[in-house]
Amino acid sequence: MSNIDSNLRACYINCTLKKSPNPSHTEGLMRLSLDILDRLSIYNEYFRLVDYNIPAGVYPDMTEHGYQTDGFSKIKRSILDADILVIGSPIWLGEKSSECVKLIERLYGLSGMTNAQGQYLYYGKVGGCIITGNEDGAKHVAMSTLYALQHIGYTIPPQADAAWLGEVGPGPSYLDEESEAQDNDFTNRNITFMTYNLLHMAGLLKSNNGIPNIGNNAKSWNNGERWAFRKMK
Amino acid sequence: MSNIDSNLRACYINCTLKKSPNPSHTEGLMRLSLDILDRLSIYNEYFRLVDYNIPAGVYPDMTEHGYQTDGFSKIKRSILDADILVIGSPIWLGEKSSECVKLIERLYGLSGMTNAQGQYLYYGKVGGCIITGNEDGAKHVAMSTLYALQHIGYTIPPQADAAWLGEVGPGPSYLDEESEAQDNDFTNRNITFMTYNLLHMAGLLKSNNGIPNIGNNAKSWNNGERWAFRKMK
Amino acid sequence: MSNIDSNLRACYINCTLKKSPNPSHTEGLMRLSLDILDRLSIYNEYFRLVDYNIPAGVYPDMTEHGYQTDGFSKIKRSILDADILVIGSPIWLGEKSSECVKLIERLYGLSGMTNAQGQYLYYGKVGGCIITGNEDGAKHVAMSTLYALQHIGYTIPPQADAAWLGEVGPGPSYLDEESEAQDNDFTNRNITFMTYNLLHMAGLLKSNNGIPNIGNNAKSWNNGERWAFRKMK
Amino acid sequence: MSNIDSNLRACYINCTLKKSPNPSHTEGLMRLSLDILDRLSIYNEYFRLVDYNIPAGVYPDMTEHGYQTDGFSKIKRSILDADILVIGSPIWLGEKSSECVKLIERLYGLSGMTNAQGQYLYYGKVGGCIITGNEDGAKHVAMSTLYALQHIGYTIPPQADAAWLGEVGPGPSYLDEESEAQDNDFTNRNITFMTYNLLHMAGLLKSNNGIPNIGNNAKSWNNGERWAFRKMK
Repeated sequence: MSNIDSNLRACYINCTLKKSPNPSHTEGLMRLSLDILDRLSIYNEYFRLVDYNIPAGVYPDMTEHGYQTDGFSKIKRSILDADILVIGSPIWLGEKSSECVKLIERLYGLSGMTNAQGQYLYYGKVGGCIITGNEDGAKHVAMSTLYALQHIGYTIPPQADAAWLGEVGPGPSYLDEESEAQDNDFTNRNITFMTYNLLHMAGLLKSNNGIPNIGNNAKSWNNGERWAFRKMK
Repeated sequence: MSNIDSNLRACYINCTLKKSPNPSHTEGLMRLSLDILDRLSIYNEYFRLVDYNIPAGVYPDMTEHGYQTDGFSKIKRSILDADILVIGSPIWLGEKSSECVKLIERLYGLSGMTNAQGQYLYYGKVGGCIITGNEDGAKHVAMSTLYALQHIGYTIPPQADAAWLGEVGPGPSYLDEESEAQDNDFTNRNITFMTYNLLHMAGLLKSNNGIPNIGNNAKSWNNGERWAFRKMK
Repeated sequence: MSNIDSNLRACYINCTLKKSPNPSHTEGLMRLSLDILDRLSIYNEYFRLVDYNIPAGVYPDMTEHGYQTDGFSKIKRSILDADILVIGSPIWLGEKSSECVKLIERLYGLSGMTNAQGQYLYYGKVGGCIITGNEDGAKHVAMSTLYALQHIGYTIPPQADAAWLGEVGPGPSYLDEESEAQDNDFTNRNITFMTYNLLHMAGLLKSNNGIPNIGNNAKSWNNGERWAFRKMK
Repeated sequence: MSNIDSNLRACYINCTLKKSPNPSHTEGLMRLSLDILDRLSIYNEYFRLVDYNIPAGVYPDMTEHGYQTDGFSKIKRSILDADILVIGSPIWLGEKSSECVKLIERLYGLSGMTNAQGQYLYYGKVGGCIITGNEDGAKHVAMSTLYALQHIGYTIPPQADAAWLGEVGPGPSYLDEESEAQDNDFTNRNITFMTYNLLHMAGLLKSNNGIPNIGNNAKSWNNGERWAFRKMK
């Protein structure tokens, strides 16, 4: 495992609708990935978003926008300190949870900030997602979640999503024994590939000091720098 | 520009529904990115998919599945030789074009193949997309296109999509002079950032010999290797 | 206007992230439709979801699932009394708001209930949606919102969505004077068509006592009734 | 069954990528719905789109746009004669097939035409969809397909989609015996509900001469009629 940079940090956020201590099927699947990190001695933090009192909104601090408290500050710190962000979501009616959408809105609320080089804040970080449902919707949830992450500056390595779904219709969920989900070879493989690819890509970016600061710096663009771009004649 | 690896190769595929020599608005926007490559002396190839006679299907060679000819072979060669793939699509009814979906199906048809290391074929390559429409749908098209690319092995750098859209409702398209689209600072900036980030990420992966061959190799997984993954107890 | 049933009731729910009294662009557009109802003397109720203290969840009453209060009860009453439901949402990162997703989750939480005939609760009602954003995503939001509504039992009449979007990139929003959005003929026409088609379809269903109770009753199905369905041989 | 109008006509279009006579899993599921129609003596036509030589495009007749032949004319006739349109699609990479997107583009290509009342051509017709895949994507495909149909004028009754999917990962498809898909109670129920709701709604609209011609007529709007709509002050 010598290729893995042991100084990487990861932040995993579970967007289940269920408050602790209710068991979360999504957490069950996320634990497989977190366990890989533990075995590789990669520092990681895990949050269940619904346990924090987090207002919806697109501003960095919602206490400045009519809310008494904003539980996002601790999670924000973890996200910004981490090289890797993994978002977990259940599926309701074929879509990611409202908690997951709220998280993306809050991430977006920070996206105007820049890193030391003047690039968007999330440049140099990598993102992935983990999805559980009992029948349908994993790719749909993943495409929307990963899109949001790359849009605000994350790099998405190959096969950066993993999921478990049962056969169409009502049925057991991930942690229910009768689902036999823990024996699903496809899900186990994808969790593994996702976790390693996030580590590989985060290590590659970290050792390179992120993404080179040419052709992607909003401050420079606003100051008139165009690099090799020319307007259509 | 010393950071850009001048040995990179790029393949751009325009999924307009219009055959040559009809003007394509999507090509108009793609040319801005191709012009950056030219100025940086990056080798690039450009295809208009609808000009080739390409059957729908999910097999590498559709002549083995009831079709007399399959125009995909030349494009396939270019895709596999390239470090960068950029898919261009117009928007119809809020969705990517049927040509774009056909291209993704054909890319998927090759996804069972592996590279020299035994990883999926597209590992080590990077992908992006360019979208034009006259009113709505760019993010929706991009999320689905970029998802497909990462799913089959491409890496998606930050801000890997660029688009032009007019105000809601019927109106001029990208190349129509009255759209003044070529002066849209947001579109021009995003085309630039996308192009540079694709180059940066492709260079980074190339100099690293792709993505490390640990934890993401289907052949090894099938042979029982699990790396640091352990099943749930 | 003799064709419009003046006994119809409508419920409009605005899923903006902004609490009252902050102006909501989405409300601005919704008001055009509500004004048509007022002129036709159709009873209507309007809610801004974020002003109520509504927990996320998929149960009818979240006070039975660990929450002290659940502000959904008043809105639920209005939804169930109404023949027409219109959901309004802003767009963030190309998606409907987290408040909109939360609303759909709560609607879904009631979907196990049945009407007097034993059909799903929302049978016989009609649904539409109104979307505002400053650049992109209206069709994507509408397809997901309207899908959820038909999935739980609503009928979707033709052209049941209306939206305003500006040109791609940052720019003025719907109520901002410089957007000149109130003069957008396409948006005004779509708001009108949507509103009338919701009224026509709701009237048609009401005068017909909803959707005939044959071939769509879960209770009968569970009791073994199959109507003209036969399993594959 | 006295409520079902036996003069209704239905058109079912299978958008599989496989040419006849290859077996189509999607056809397998569509046959369950067609069999209900047969038992109720409802006239129906069935097409496998890929068997016709149909160019991509958004014009009514593609022979006027550079193509030698356009196999869409016969299918077009059936669509326009029918009260009910059901689109069947397989799922590839979580999305509807390229044939399905091509069909929607061609339907859209006719959407500028109007019926005898001056409303859009598809007003008064109803639409549904049937989806098969081996693991994921049915709701995503349905939401996009049903959205397109309502956008061009179709009415969508409740629960107008039905699907079969297996557990996540590679596995048997609908017609494969080991899938035991034909015994999936959820799929069988949804096929039944969908079919009956399409018949109920089509009958309701037919007996009402379609959707009342008030507030939804583009010609009248263009001539300055605004009904009860007023611009924002």
